[in-house]
Amino acid sequence: MKTYVKRDFPVHKARQILEPGPIVLVSSAYKNDVNIMTMGWHTVMEFSPSLIGCVIASSNFSFDLIRKSKQCVINVPTADMANTVVKIGNSDGDEVDKFKAFNLTPVPAKKVKAPLIKECFANFECKLADSHMINKYNFFIFEIVKAVKAVAPMHPQTLHYHGEGVFSTDGKYMNKAKAFTKYRGSPTF
Amino acid sequence: MKTYVKRDFPVHKARQILEPGPIVLVSSAYKNDVNIMTMGWHTVMEFSPSLIGCVIASSNFSFDLIRKSKQCVINVPTADMANTVVKIGNSDGDEVDKFKAFNLTPVPAKKVKAPLIKECFANFECKLADSHMINKYNFFIFEIVKAVKAVAPMHPQTLHYHGEGVFSTDGKYMNKAKAFTKYRGSPTF
Repeated sequence: MKTYVKRDFPVHKARQILEPGPIVLVSSAYKNDVNIMTMGWHTVMEFSPSLIGCVIASSNFSFDLIRKSKQCVINVPTADMANTVVKIGNSDGDEVDKFKAFNLTPVPAKKVKAPLIKECFANFECKLADSHMINKYNFFIFEIVKAVKAVAPMHPQTLHYHGEGVFSTDGKYMNKAKAFTKYRGSPTF
Repeated sequence: MKTYVKRDFPVHKARQILEPGPIVLVSSAYKNDVNIMTMGWHTVMEFSPSLIGCVIASSNFSFDLIRKSKQCVINVPTADMANTVVKIGNSDGDEVDKFKAFNLTPVPAKKVKAPLIKECFANFECKLADSHMINKYNFFIFEIVKAVKAVAPMHPQTLHYHGEGVFSTDGKYMNKAKAFTKYRGSPTF
């Protein structure tokens, strides 16, 4: 996987990376547990404070880690990580250490306890800003409190999910349905 | 602009089109007013009911139309409509009839009063499902109650917004900053 030289990125410009709709990896930590999940249901909600709203299903091992720690990191993977993204989404954090299993490097964050994923193009450290929508919609509103982004390339090949195992990047489509060992056939597939 | 042959699309599959993060056009109607706005801050929230959460700034002429009518249509434009998308985002609905000004064709919806935009690849008729987050975040939660999608192409060239006037489609980037006559320099640019 690629490694990047990263620099601080203004949190109010997060929309430049998140508004185009990439699949992201959410890392979290609580007590002795650390996890990573894939997430496609997110939206920018405000420039300043830099707010992101997202759905994290309560069935996910990450749900409790994030709800209890009130923190997470939103990491933006690129197309070279497509198979890793699928594996992360098709394994359970209570059964496997996803950093070890998928050769990802945890990097300490500056403002939260959840680790950054080194191999990702950009990393957004987040603190829970509003929990009122969690019970009804599994909807978390986070404030991005710190961000870093790779210096290059200018236009990263982000991954976009179309459901049923299909991802696209820069107009190229990849069908990864066979690797969806866990969720194939379920409504979330 | 292109015209499409469209068919009914299952509302619980809306994520296939909206999760990849396209810029959308929101049409609305209330009493004698009709309007269109561009929107990039949206997320899928549930499969069934088919819920979409999105931010509609209160400064927008569409805000009151949608809040009062409790309805809208989310229309998905493609790359051939890029200049129209920019013009829609840089004009005011209380000053101009955007359908007429930009040669767009309103088509009656089946379940809401807001019109569909014929030239768009897909159209989602929406009813307001939850208004609790409007006052604090300008955040609307809609239920998609009816959807149509073009039969072809299979992979439409949707537009993705990166801020500061830059759009991408299929990995090709377009800088439309010069056409941002209204918002250039503002935080929302």
